[in-house]
Amino acid sequence: MYHSQRILNSSSPATEGGEGIVLDLWYQERHNDEISLGLHVKKVLATKQSPFQRVDVMETSGFGRILTLDGLMMVTERDEFVYHEMIAHVPCLVHKKPERVLVIGGGDGGTLREVLRHDSVKEAVLCEIDPEVVSLSRQYLPFTAVGLNHPRAKVNIADGVEFVKNSADHSFDIVIVDSTDPIGPGVGLFSGAFYKEVRRILKPDGIVMAQCESPWENGIDLAKVYGNLREVGQVWAFSGSIPTYPFGFWSWAFASATAHPYEVIDMERARAIEKSTRYYNTEIHRGSFALPNFLKQRLKGVVSNA
Amino acid sequence: MYHSQRILNSSSPATEGGEGIVLDLWYQERHNDEISLGLHVKKVLATKQSPFQRVDVMETSGFGRILTLDGLMMVTERDEFVYHEMIAHVPCLVHKKPERVLVIGGGDGGTLREVLRHDSVKEAVLCEIDPEVVSLSRQYLPFTAVGLNHPRAKVNIADGVEFVKNSADHSFDIVIVDSTDPIGPGVGLFSGAFYKEVRRILKPDGIVMAQCESPWENGIDLAKVYGNLREVGQVWAFSGSIPTYPFGFWSWAFASATAHPYEVIDMERARAIEKSTRYYNTEIHRGSFALPNFLKQRLKGVVSNA
Repeated sequence: MYHSQRILNSSSPATEGGEGIVLDLWYQERHNDEISLGLHVKKVLATKQSPFQRVDVMETSGFGRILTLDGLMMVTERDEFVYHEMIAHVPCLVHKKPERVLVIGGGDGGTLREVLRHDSVKEAVLCEIDPEVVSLSRQYLPFTAVGLNHPRAKVNIADGVEFVKNSADHSFDIVIVDSTDPIGPGVGLFSGAFYKEVRRILKPDGIVMAQCESPWENGIDLAKVYGNLREVGQVWAFSGSIPTYPFGFWSWAFASATAHPYEVIDMERARAIEKSTRYYNTEIHRGSFALPNFLKQRLKGVVSNA
Repeated sequence: MYHSQRILNSSSPATEGGEGIVLDLWYQERHNDEISLGLHVKKVLATKQSPFQRVDVMETSGFGRILTLDGLMMVTERDEFVYHEMIAHVPCLVHKKPERVLVIGGGDGGTLREVLRHDSVKEAVLCEIDPEVVSLSRQYLPFTAVGLNHPRAKVNIADGVEFVKNSADHSFDIVIVDSTDPIGPGVGLFSGAFYKEVRRILKPDGIVMAQCESPWENGIDLAKVYGNLREVGQVWAFSGSIPTYPFGFWSWAFASATAHPYEVIDMERARAIEKSTRYYNTEIHRGSFALPNFLKQRLKGVVSNA
């Protein structure tokens, strides 16, 4: 996933460690054979091969520190707030009083950080399969790892599918599936069987939230990804701008047997949360459920807002 | 702006014309020294140096035909509909009865194509500075050039600033500034003096629309770009997902002395238009005026929805 090139006259910021000759180092993510994203890298900070995946941490010149898994972008310091604010505040501000929240995946801690801004949350439980992700995040990504170290956070290193199977009935108000893509270790988190189990551990008025890839991605059957969430109840899609994710545009599912995702937002709690957010506000909350026609076509009959 | 590399074992689709050895040709747009977009190129179809700029047309493997000006992405066949639908239908469906519309820039014809879906429009006048853009679009981009060839389109090759100066008072219902970036030939289309003249040629209940760069772009003073539109009246910002533009997220200004951008949308006309659109619908219309907190901060005191 790396492409490096020695050049004598670079207009790019110098990569650390060079003397005279500049190393023009770019992280290149080919989303597929057709489109790629490049970020200029100042320094590769860590590279680990865990039993699950390759984990890299880099310092970039424009996006701060970044974390990639198997060469795919997971977190950048500059734009991670969009993903983490949306996946946390949309369900937490719709739920009347979220007390127990489960985050599956999300080993960087960013989702925990946002969930724990809600005072009603007594315990935010994380279940991350790869200890290397948690450990490298603690070492290099303090801006998200702050969530891992929060007194009301409980970090488990375990397989999410197994963890859900072993959890008690009706034990969580909100379950957030903060997974990687539906390839590699994250694949089980996209199945209907998994969501059936998620419903079992969810309280009757609970909410499930899941990242659901880019609306522009034709290599994934979005209707199937969203459709599997119907095991939980009714499903809605929403979207947001994330420059460093494929196509710069991401989507999430909101699923619940009882709750509507934007008819009633707790405005008093929202006003307090909005003071700390950089993306989320209640207009964005509602507006993000407006889907472009091409996405409505892909999700017709599957999500309630298509 | 091109980066090509000879490789023996490429997983990319073959570039046309190769025999045995595959040419792995990528268009790379460095938005700045920190981030870049790459598109795999099957074939470079045309390269012209006009008196104004370098114009290139390429066939890509994932985004169809693309047009770049001075190496910067203007149009791709796959995602151009977002930009052209939003810049045309937002003002046309808010205006009670748009009859005369002026498009400044937009030599590819895409904006004309969408404006002319509105039956009330008697004449859509284009003013493009560079005949090479019009000519290459007619030759290679039939999907947008259809707008240039429409019987109610009137194509002028002229400097937009001069054209506006020479236009009569109150002669247009809608003026759409479909410009390049605020560098190069487009720079005059971003000034306050220009918008003062635009207001003069606009009818009293008229609407001005302008592309206003990416909300994520820190290299541009967005408050100034939007602020100059206040010469027209009140200003609002709205945004949308365009994967091949910098940061995958674009913004536009809606400016008017009398009209509000989403309180009243002509729903009957909208229902008809929505049948042909791939991005625009009335929920997207309203939802696109919900601005992320970081953009509100940049535009506070400048636009009415910040």
